[in-house]
Amino acid sequence: VIAALAGGVGAARLLRGLVRAVPPGDVVAIVNTGDDDIFHGLSVSPDLDTVTYTLAGAVNLETGWGLAGDTFRGNEALRRYGVPTWFRLGDLDLATHLYRTERLRAGATLSEVTREITGAWGLETRLLPMSDDPVRTIIEVAGGDGEGPQALRMQEWFVGRRCEPPVLDVRFDGAAGAAAAPEVLDVIAGADVVVICPSNPIISIGPILAVPGIRAAVARRRDRVVAISPIIAGAPVKGPADRLMGPLGYEVSCVGIARAYADLCATLVIDELDRSRAAEVERGGLRAVVAPTLMTDAGAAEQLARIALAAVG
Amino acid sequence: VIAALAGGVGAARLLRGLVRAVPPGDVVAIVNTGDDDIFHGLSVSPDLDTVTYTLAGAVNLETGWGLAGDTFRGNEALRRYGVPTWFRLGDLDLATHLYRTERLRAGATLSEVTREITGAWGLETRLLPMSDDPVRTIIEVAGGDGEGPQALRMQEWFVGRRCEPPVLDVRFDGAAGAAAAPEVLDVIAGADVVVICPSNPIISIGPILAVPGIRAAVARRRDRVVAISPIIAGAPVKGPADRLMGPLGYEVSCVGIARAYADLCATLVIDELDRSRAAEVERGGLRAVVAPTLMTDAGAAEQLARIALAAVG
Repeated sequence: VIAALAGGVGAARLLRGLVRAVPPGDVVAIVNTGDDDIFHGLSVSPDLDTVTYTLAGAVNLETGWGLAGDTFRGNEALRRYGVPTWFRLGDLDLATHLYRTERLRAGATLSEVTREITGAWGLETRLLPMSDDPVRTIIEVAGGDGEGPQALRMQEWFVGRRCEPPVLDVRFDGAAGAAAAPEVLDVIAGADVVVICPSNPIISIGPILAVPGIRAAVARRRDRVVAISPIIAGAPVKGPADRLMGPLGYEVSCVGIARAYADLCATLVIDELDRSRAAEVERGGLRAVVAPTLMTDAGAAEQLARIALAAVG
Repeated sequence: VIAALAGGVGAARLLRGLVRAVPPGDVVAIVNTGDDDIFHGLSVSPDLDTVTYTLAGAVNLETGWGLAGDTFRGNEALRRYGVPTWFRLGDLDLATHLYRTERLRAGATLSEVTREITGAWGLETRLLPMSDDPVRTIIEVAGGDGEGPQALRMQEWFVGRRCEPPVLDVRFDGAAGAAAAPEVLDVIAGADVVVICPSNPIISIGPILAVPGIRAAVARRRDRVVAISPIIAGAPVKGPADRLMGPLGYEVSCVGIARAYADLCATLVIDELDRSRAAEVERGGLRAVVAPTLMTDAGAAEQLARIALAAVG
């Protein structure tokens, strides 16, 4: 079994390659739910859905999230009622949120609903939410003139405010009291390889590691853990990692990633553009594997997945 | 003020004429909520929405309900999750249900939410739900071979089962303990005229009258109450009135309507095709006014509204 700690778009792209490199049923993704939020009363799990839609071959390949060919008629219609519509819910995508919300309200756990949803999409790969308890990633940002810091939910900062307010700190509300979802700790303990996907280390992998027991479980497998740097040549491939890593004291580079994961993984895959920094990564106690890490298509993703798995041996 | 007891499509069409005959702000519609139901966790109020969309000029004129130009992509997408999708929710229409559901869950009353929704659509006419308490119209139908009677919610019988199971009885769950919504009793008591719209007497007007206090309030204004027969030449213009009136002991005709409303209204508008039955209506103690009652367009609806109002004087 290959266990993969996964955020959204970057993780989904790697997983798409991973399930070509090994049988899809041998992959278990442990997915960040810190971005989960409620919009118009609906429980939305952005990362679970991005991974599901991607593995189902139904994702919008241009944006990396949402469903291909989706429309936003319902979301636009909500404007009439004066509610915030900056988080764009697609008409087809809404079905997933309606289904999830109703099942959760009926008492199902997020793990159970996720199994139902991935089953409905025909996935052989298992997706485990990191926790069935709500954990909410909160971005603390500088307020305006004369105002104190503001606490924004992740989607509010990322989508609603376009990552513009400078970040002061990040916290994971609810994490301390959350339990890892069923199977999560066992899957990590028993996996042949644990892959830390090329996701944002602060707000995609960070919340997973903040659930009590998960960081320790990964650290115990350090020799079998391989991470793929989401930073190439000092910039994230996608998303706001640069706006988070700097303020939180990490260099925005594969070296910064190496430092963030030093206690967790013995191997870090870095991009060919970062070859000159391999020595620095290795001085931090990790083995650096240099490879093309830009997943331009499923074939490139498969190649990267094979390199990552081979690196662990 | 003109108070109008209203169900769905037939009522909406009359109201569209009424607001051309008198200032829209002088009309208050008291609307059936017995058809309200929950689909995919969303609170749906079919009659309130039909009246709102019709008065806003946004209704789908072909079907009489839903929004013109709406699509059903989300509803179709729900099939993947194996949930019943026979109640077709439009993509644009969903915005209304999402808004209503969230506001109700936040503690707003249905009256308050209805005021917000009608305000968002720019209506000057006030819509009052008959009650802020849930009342559910239940159709008791014959079961299959060897099975006892079945209790179906109204939409389940009407849409889900296409009115096919023969009706044994109708009841209004929750009605006995429900209170008329704020203003309802005062509006009836103070109205210049009370109009009973050409709606299904059993399951559109029936639930309104089943809310404690409303039937008595209407009966006290009997001289100022005018009903319009929804039955023309022995058949309903639209909807399943014939499948309900017969089993419940009413002749499916304007004479049956006259008997159902004898204690409530002094005047009944019947169609020209029913002229020969005017004497029978009058023997029941109501004045019969013969008029063209088929509302083929807004002009015809206005004409009918003017005749109904003039009949009360």
